[in-house]
Amino acid sequence: MSIVHPPIHFCSSCGAPVTHAIPEGDNIARHICTRCGTIHYQNPKMVVGCIAEWEGKVLLCRRAIEPRHGRWTLPAGFMENAETTAEAAARETLEEACAQVRIERLFALVNIPYIHQVHLFYTAALIDGVHAPGIESLESRLFAEADIPWREMAFRSVSFALRAWLDDRRAERSGTVHTTDLVPPTTPPD
Amino acid sequence: MSIVHPPIHFCSSCGAPVTHAIPEGDNIARHICTRCGTIHYQNPKMVVGCIAEWEGKVLLCRRAIEPRHGRWTLPAGFMENAETTAEAAARETLEEACAQVRIERLFALVNIPYIHQVHLFYTAALIDGVHAPGIESLESRLFAEADIPWREMAFRSVSFALRAWLDDRRAERSGTVHTTDLVPPTTPPD
Repeated sequence: MSIVHPPIHFCSSCGAPVTHAIPEGDNIARHICTRCGTIHYQNPKMVVGCIAEWEGKVLLCRRAIEPRHGRWTLPAGFMENAETTAEAAARETLEEACAQVRIERLFALVNIPYIHQVHLFYTAALIDGVHAPGIESLESRLFAEADIPWREMAFRSVSFALRAWLDDRRAERSGTVHTTDLVPPTTPPD
Repeated sequence: MSIVHPPIHFCSSCGAPVTHAIPEGDNIARHICTRCGTIHYQNPKMVVGCIAEWEGKVLLCRRAIEPRHGRWTLPAGFMENAETTAEAAARETLEEACAQVRIERLFALVNIPYIHQVHLFYTAALIDGVHAPGIESLESRLFAEADIPWREMAFRSVSFALRAWLDDRRAERSGTVHTTDLVPPTTPPD
């Protein structure tokens, strides 16, 4: 879930330098090629993950990569081209926690406009309870609600989705898609 | 809603040529700079729009741009960096239909993996009923259900969201977020 925005100094189509200016008919400054005129748009990225359950417990991974090395997270990552959001959620769960899931439904959408990301979380069921740390994880574990390491969570979006899911389960509610917009943290990230 | 993916031949950071290869620890081929090693990821883009209502009618725009010049659509467009999904939906409605809206809730998510897009639609209410064609529209109009020009709609995602919204309204249902995955059309786009 790192921020991947290499600087744009050159045109990826022709290799010439770019300027940063507002194209005709637009109202936002873009990187525009000084030779071929290609406009290089930059848009938000989607991070997609799973709230995957097995026998009442939820699957978390401890991160082996930055940012937030050593912290716990729901399995999630950048959506790739040519896949659907649900496919991305299942793929990330397989990659980070070696767990196969049956995707249930869209559960949460979290806007993080200051890092140009939208996070989506799906509810899912582990297919056979099997899990293990993938290459980007130090550890994978199924947590009962009482044991969730809230103070060691990697991302606020993950804590938001997980709390909403536990609240819904406790209240025997279902069907709501939970949404929120995050603002930059004023204290060190929690 | 055009597909904006300029080819990647050169590194946007340093201007050197790129190769197309699978980076270490990855499993998808990426464009990698032959000089500075920067990996240029490409990810799906979000298109966000509004189902905006006024006195029981829904706001549509007739497109003044390609693709689908002359066809009708819900106001929608590419989400920009530094905004939320709801802000994007309201901004697009202002830009394409000169209409101010009060956003209500997330209503639909449509995956279109073969063009690397995810479309989101929000329900909204026009604030004062005022609308007019923006620079990318030939016409803006409030349609009663019976008058919706189904055979002249620009995008299948828009038709999906609009039909679901009308179905829900007729059945007096609310709260569901409707999702679907589109596959490439086998006949000319409808």
